[in-house]
Amino acid sequence: MNNFTKEVMSVGEMASGAKLTVPVYVFETENNSAPSVYIQANMHGAEVQGNAVIFQLLELLQHCNLQGNITLVPYANPVACNHKNGEYTLGRFDPITGENWNRMYHFDQSVIAPFAQQYLDASEEEIADKFQQLLITEIDQRLEHNIWGITTGQRIAYQLQRLAHQADIVLDLHTGPISSKHLYCPEYAKASAEYFDIEHTIFIQNGFDGAMDEATFCPWWSLQEAYQDLGRNFTMGKGAFKKESFTVELGSQEQIDLDVAKQDALGILSYLQSQGVIDNKQYQPQEMTRYACYLKDYKALYSPMGGMVDYLGEFGKPLAAGEPLARILRMDNYGDGEALHYVSLEQDVIPILHFASASVNQGTELYKVFCNYFEL
Amino acid sequence: MNNFTKEVMSVGEMASGAKLTVPVYVFETENNSAPSVYIQANMHGAEVQGNAVIFQLLELLQHCNLQGNITLVPYANPVACNHKNGEYTLGRFDPITGENWNRMYHFDQSVIAPFAQQYLDASEEEIADKFQQLLITEIDQRLEHNIWGITTGQRIAYQLQRLAHQADIVLDLHTGPISSKHLYCPEYAKASAEYFDIEHTIFIQNGFDGAMDEATFCPWWSLQEAYQDLGRNFTMGKGAFKKESFTVELGSQEQIDLDVAKQDALGILSYLQSQGVIDNKQYQPQEMTRYACYLKDYKALYSPMGGMVDYLGEFGKPLAAGEPLARILRMDNYGDGEALHYVSLEQDVIPILHFASASVNQGTELYKVFCNYFEL
Amino acid sequence: MNNFTKEVMSVGEMASGAKLTVPVYVFETENNSAPSVYIQANMHGAEVQGNAVIFQLLELLQHCNLQGNITLVPYANPVACNHKNGEYTLGRFDPITGENWNRMYHFDQSVIAPFAQQYLDASEEEIADKFQQLLITEIDQRLEHNIWGITTGQRIAYQLQRLAHQADIVLDLHTGPISSKHLYCPEYAKASAEYFDIEHTIFIQNGFDGAMDEATFCPWWSLQEAYQDLGRNFTMGKGAFKKESFTVELGSQEQIDLDVAKQDALGILSYLQSQGVIDNKQYQPQEMTRYACYLKDYKALYSPMGGMVDYLGEFGKPLAAGEPLARILRMDNYGDGEALHYVSLEQDVIPILHFASASVNQGTELYKVFCNYFEL
Amino acid sequence: MNNFTKEVMSVGEMASGAKLTVPVYVFETENNSAPSVYIQANMHGAEVQGNAVIFQLLELLQHCNLQGNITLVPYANPVACNHKNGEYTLGRFDPITGENWNRMYHFDQSVIAPFAQQYLDASEEEIADKFQQLLITEIDQRLEHNIWGITTGQRIAYQLQRLAHQADIVLDLHTGPISSKHLYCPEYAKASAEYFDIEHTIFIQNGFDGAMDEATFCPWWSLQEAYQDLGRNFTMGKGAFKKESFTVELGSQEQIDLDVAKQDALGILSYLQSQGVIDNKQYQPQEMTRYACYLKDYKALYSPMGGMVDYLGEFGKPLAAGEPLARILRMDNYGDGEALHYVSLEQDVIPILHFASASVNQGTELYKVFCNYFEL
Repeated sequence: MNNFTKEVMSVGEMASGAKLTVPVYVFETENNSAPSVYIQANMHGAEVQGNAVIFQLLELLQHCNLQGNITLVPYANPVACNHKNGEYTLGRFDPITGENWNRMYHFDQSVIAPFAQQYLDASEEEIADKFQQLLITEIDQRLEHNIWGITTGQRIAYQLQRLAHQADIVLDLHTGPISSKHLYCPEYAKASAEYFDIEHTIFIQNGFDGAMDEATFCPWWSLQEAYQDLGRNFTMGKGAFKKESFTVELGSQEQIDLDVAKQDALGILSYLQSQGVIDNKQYQPQEMTRYACYLKDYKALYSPMGGMVDYLGEFGKPLAAGEPLARILRMDNYGDGEALHYVSLEQDVIPILHFASASVNQGTELYKVFCNYFEL
Repeated sequence: MNNFTKEVMSVGEMASGAKLTVPVYVFETENNSAPSVYIQANMHGAEVQGNAVIFQLLELLQHCNLQGNITLVPYANPVACNHKNGEYTLGRFDPITGENWNRMYHFDQSVIAPFAQQYLDASEEEIADKFQQLLITEIDQRLEHNIWGITTGQRIAYQLQRLAHQADIVLDLHTGPISSKHLYCPEYAKASAEYFDIEHTIFIQNGFDGAMDEATFCPWWSLQEAYQDLGRNFTMGKGAFKKESFTVELGSQEQIDLDVAKQDALGILSYLQSQGVIDNKQYQPQEMTRYACYLKDYKALYSPMGGMVDYLGEFGKPLAAGEPLARILRMDNYGDGEALHYVSLEQDVIPILHFASASVNQGTELYKVFCNYFEL
Repeated sequence: MNNFTKEVMSVGEMASGAKLTVPVYVFETENNSAPSVYIQANMHGAEVQGNAVIFQLLELLQHCNLQGNITLVPYANPVACNHKNGEYTLGRFDPITGENWNRMYHFDQSVIAPFAQQYLDASEEEIADKFQQLLITEIDQRLEHNIWGITTGQRIAYQLQRLAHQADIVLDLHTGPISSKHLYCPEYAKASAEYFDIEHTIFIQNGFDGAMDEATFCPWWSLQEAYQDLGRNFTMGKGAFKKESFTVELGSQEQIDLDVAKQDALGILSYLQSQGVIDNKQYQPQEMTRYACYLKDYKALYSPMGGMVDYLGEFGKPLAAGEPLARILRMDNYGDGEALHYVSLEQDVIPILHFASASVNQGTELYKVFCNYFEL
Repeated sequence: MNNFTKEVMSVGEMASGAKLTVPVYVFETENNSAPSVYIQANMHGAEVQGNAVIFQLLELLQHCNLQGNITLVPYANPVACNHKNGEYTLGRFDPITGENWNRMYHFDQSVIAPFAQQYLDASEEEIADKFQQLLITEIDQRLEHNIWGITTGQRIAYQLQRLAHQADIVLDLHTGPISSKHLYCPEYAKASAEYFDIEHTIFIQNGFDGAMDEATFCPWWSLQEAYQDLGRNFTMGKGAFKKESFTVELGSQEQIDLDVAKQDALGILSYLQSQGVIDNKQYQPQEMTRYACYLKDYKALYSPMGGMVDYLGEFGKPLAAGEPLARILRMDNYGDGEALHYVSLEQDVIPILHFASASVNQGTELYKVFCNYFEL
C-alpha cells in the first residue's frame, strides 16, 4: 500500500486574519520514470464534485502500482468554496472584483523567444529542465517580489500553478452549471481523450486566456513553436514536450455524489494507466461513442428574452436543426401576447450544459452546445 | 369558453424609478354561489414553478364550468423574482434587510375581541361581510395612511393580501429548495388535503408567523374562538367560516417544467371541484398513499459540521431510525481524521426536502423531515 | 502593568472544514470585588470600529488599576466579518438564511417563575449565583445536547452569550450604517448613560427580541418582577441585580479610525470608573448635552418612493417639523414629472442615522430619528 | 429657453418580463455647427452622482446658448443601478457573470485597415461620415443580427454606444469607490483637461480594453494611424478627427449631493464652452493646480495582508516616499504578534482613491495612486 504525505499550504488571509489554507496530498515514487501528475479540484466555489473524485483517487491510488509522483489538491480555492450568497455557493468569480477565479493564472509569452535563443543547441533534457525552472521562477517572482502586491485570486492561482508546473500532466477538475461531463483537451493530445470515460471533448489550441490548463501547456506549445521558427523541431506531447493538461468537467455544480465520483476516479486511472503513471492494467477506458468539436464550435446561446426557462435539450444527444432547445415562459404576456416562446437553432448541435436557474434575463447564457461535432 | 380580465398592479419602485408590477388575472362568474378563490405564485424569488402552474390553470379554467370567481397572480414578488446573486435567484429574503418575504403579511390579533363583541348577535352572513371588510380596511390603513411609511416587503405583501382577503380560498404556490411536493393545511381543513395530488401534508394550527396562508385563515379561526368565548359557536370551514388557505409546495426551486405543471394544475382543479368552485367531475384526486404530520413534528436537522454533503435520504420514503440520511465529506481530514461522516437520526422519519447546495456550514439546515407521521 | 490572557474560541466550521475562531482576551484581578465586565465587537460584519476600540482598551487597561475582571472579544462573528458582497461586507444577516446575527441570542422566559418559586427565600447572593448558573446551563444545553442541531448563528451567539452571562456588565459594540454615536440603555440603568461620551441614548424596557444586551439583562429584570409578584422586592441595578447591558453604537460602519477609537475607549473607561471596575479617577465623562428618547419614540422613516437620496438631516441636531430631512432625485421624471421630491416630518426630531447608500427602493429605511426626545 | 426631447430606450428584460429602460434627453440646435455631445451616467450601479450632474446640466443647458446637439443619458444601466446586495448597490459587474459593465463596449480593430484603403483618397468630410456610419453599422449588426444572441451587458452597452458614436464628444460620468475627482483623458486631447474643474488627470493611449471612452475614441485614433501608414496624415482632435472622449470620475460612489453636482456641472459647461458647444463665456475653468500622470503610472496597491484598514493617505496631496499610506489592524495578533501594520511606498505618490470598506482580504486593492506625476 502506497503512503502519501499531507501538507497544508497557506494561500491568503481574510479581514479577521483568518488564514486560507489548502491541503496538498503527495504520492512519491522512487523509480519516478513515468510522467508526474498534478490534480486539483474546486477552483470555482460551487464545483465541488472534484473533491469527491480526489477522495476516491486517494482511496484507489494507495493500492496502485505507482510509477510517477502524483500531487492532489482538493478545496483549491477556500475563498470561493466557502462563499455563500443565499443558499448557493458563489461560484465563478471573486465576490469583490468579479474576476473569474480560473482566469488569473500566469503566462508571459515574451519569455519564450529569448529562452529558445539562449538554449538553441541545448539537449532536449536540458531544455525541459531549464524551461520548467524558468516557469517556476516566473511565478516565484510574482508571488514574492512585487512591491505593489498581487490580487487575492492571483495569490491563490500562482501558488497552485507553482505546484502544477512541477508536473508533466495537469488535471483541473471542474463542473458545468447543470451539465453533462466533458473534457477540454489540447489538440496535440487528442489521443489521450479516448482514455477518459467522458463522452464529449473540446479540442483547444494554443490561446492563453488565463485558465490553469492553458497556463501549463501553452508555454510548452509556444516554446516548441519558437524552436520551430529557429529551425529545430520538437513534437508536442513527446520527449521534453510530453506535457498534457486537461480541464475535466465532471457534470453539474453544487452536488456531491461519492458513487459517481468513484466512476470518475476510475476514468482518471484509466488515463493515468495509458500514460504509464500507474501500472494497473485493470484500469481501461469504457466503450462509448465519444463526440468532439473544436473550441470555436463550442458555442454559447444567449437568451433572446427575459423569462423562465423550461430546458428541453437533452445533454449529449444530437439535436436536429429546428428542434426546440428550450421554451421560455412569459406569464406577463398571457392573454395579450406570447406566453410561451420556443428557442431553436438552425443547425444540428449537441447540448452540453445549460444555465443553473430557470430564471433568465435577456442575454443570460442559456445553453452551450457542440456545433460541427464529430466522432472520435 | 370563459373569459378572464388582466390587470397590472403596481407594487413598488426601484432606485431608478422603475415600477414594480404584478399581473392579476380574474375569472368572474355571474352565479357566484361557490367560494371565491385567490391563487398566487413566486413570492419567494427562486420558487418559480407556480408560475407554470398558473399558466396551466389559465389554459384549463377557460374550459371549466366555473361557479365562483378566481383570481390568479403569478410573479407575485418582482423584486425577488428578478434578483440574481451569481447564477441563482436570491430566493427567500429582501436582499437589503434579510427579511423573509413570506413573513411580512399582517394580522393584528387585537381587533378580534372588540369585533366579536360588537357583532355578537349579528347574522352569520353579516359577520362574514363585516369581518372581511375589517380585514381589508386594516390593510388599507397600513398601505395608505402611514406617515412613517412601510417596508418594501410589506408594500408587496399587503397589496397581495388585500386581494386574498376578498377570497374564501387562498392557495399560495411555493416550492422547497430541493424537495418533494408537500402541503401546509390548517387542521380544521384536514378533509381537503385528500383532494390535492400531494403525498405529504403538514397540519398547522392557529399560530400567526407572518405567512400568507396564516394571514388569511388565522383571523377567522381567532374570530371563531372569540365567539366561542362569548358563548356563540361557529364551525371553522363551514358557513361564514368557510375559509381555507394552503401553502402548496410544488417541489424544487429554480426549475420550470410545464409538463409537471400541468399535473399540478389538475390536482388543484380536483380540489376546486371538491369545493364546488368548478363543476367538472373529471377532475378527481389521484389515488396515492398520503402521509401527514403536525407542524411541531416537521423538524429541521442542522448540520453538525461544515463540509460537503452527499444527500442520501430519499424524499417521501420512510427512513428507519439509524439509517444514514447524509454523508458529509471532509477532505481536509483525509489521512489524519474522519474524511466521511454519516448523519442519522434516532427515530423513523420521512425526508421531505434538503438544502439546495452540497456545501454547508456547521449549522446549515440539512434536511426537513416528518416525525411521528401518519397516513391520511 | 496588568497582564491579560488570550485564548482562541472555536465557533463553527465552513464547507471546506475551515475553523471559525474568535480571540478572547481576559484581564483577571485578585481582589475582584467590583463588577466583572464583558465587551465584544463586530457581531455584525461591517461594524468594525469596535475592534479598534478593543485595541485601544487593551492598550489602556494594561495601565489601569483594575478592580474587576474584564473579558474582551473582537471579531465576534467571523462568518459575517469576512463575508464580502461586492466591495462591502454583508453586515447584518446570515447570507444563507437572512437571519439578523444579533437576533439569535437565547432567553426562555418560562424558566423564571419556577426559579423564583424554588429560591423564594434564598439569600440575595445565592439567588445571584444560582440564577447565573441557570442561565449558563440553559446555554450549555442548547450548545451541547441538541440532537437536531442549532443554526450557524445560534452556535456563534450562544458561545458569546456563555461568556457574557459570566459578567455583570455587558457592552456590545456596534455601529449604525451612516450614523452618529448612540447608546441603547436599559431604563433602570439610566444613571449610567451620563458616563459614556455619547450624546444620544435610547432607553429600552424589558422586551426580549434576541439581541445580546437584552439576552443578558432581561432575564434579571424578569426575575426581579417574578419575585415582586411573589412579594419579595429587589431593585434592578443593585446588589444581586447589579446587571447592566448596553449596545454601544460607535458611528458608521465599514470604517476603522484608530484615533476616534481612542476617544471611544476613554468614554468606556469613564463608565467603568463610575462602576468601580477600574480605580482611575482621570477617566471622567466629557461635558456635553445628552439627548434621550424611549425606544417607542426611536422611529424609522421608510422611503415613500424609489430614487436616489441626498440626505439633508444632520445627525444629532434637532430638526424642526416641516424642515427637509432628505431630497430624492428621480431623473426618470425630469421633464414630465417631479424630478426632486422633498421628505419632511410633521414633528420635531433628531436624526440619528441614515441608510448607507443613496439608492433606495420604495420602502427602504431612510432615517432613524428621535421623537419626543428630552435632555438627560 | 432651450427645449429638450425625452425618450425612453428599452435595453433589456428581466426574468419576470420587466422591461429595462433608460431615459434619453436630447437638445437639438438648428445651426449645429459645433461638435455634438453625448453624456451618460451610472453605467456602474453604485456610481450615482453623475445622475445628479445630469440633473444640474439639464437645468443649466435650458438657459445656455447652444451651438451643438447634446444627448444626456442618466441611469444608463438599470440592472446595475437597481441591484442591491445588502444595503449597497452591487456596482461594477454583472451579478450573474462577474463581467465589468464598463468592459463590454465594442471595437473591432480589423475593420480599420480595409476602410482606410477603401477611402484612401476620400475627402476628410466623407471619411468622417462614412467611418461614423461604419461604427454605427458594426453595432447594429451585433445588436440585431446575431443568431446566438448577445449578453445582457453587451445589449445595454451597445445601445448606449450607438448613441455615443453619433456624437463628437463623449463624457462617461463615473465615480471611484472612495475617491477624489479625476479624469481619464486621451493623450492627444491633453489641452482639454484644463477646462474641467478636476485636479487629477490620467492620460491614456490607444489601447482598447472595453470601456466607453476607449470605444469611442480608439477607432478614430486607429484610423488616423492607418492613414498615416498609407501616407496620409490627419491630426487627432482636429477636423474629421475632432473626437474627444473622457471618463469623468466625480468622487465617491453611493452618494448623491446636488450641491456638489452643480459645481461638477459648471465644470462640464466650462469644457463645452471651450469646445464651442455652448457660447456662454461665463463658464470658465477654475484656477487650481492640476496634476497628471500617464496610465502606466496610475498604480494599484494590493493589501499585503488581510485586516481592517485605517486609510491615512489624503487624496490629492503628494505623499513622500516612506510616509504611511494606511495602517492595518490585526486584533488576532494582539498580544503575540503585530496588531498594527503600517503600509508605505518607496516613491512619492498622490493618493487618488481607496477601497470602499475597511475590511480587506490579502490582495484586495487598497489604494490607487499617481506615480511620476507632473503639473499640467
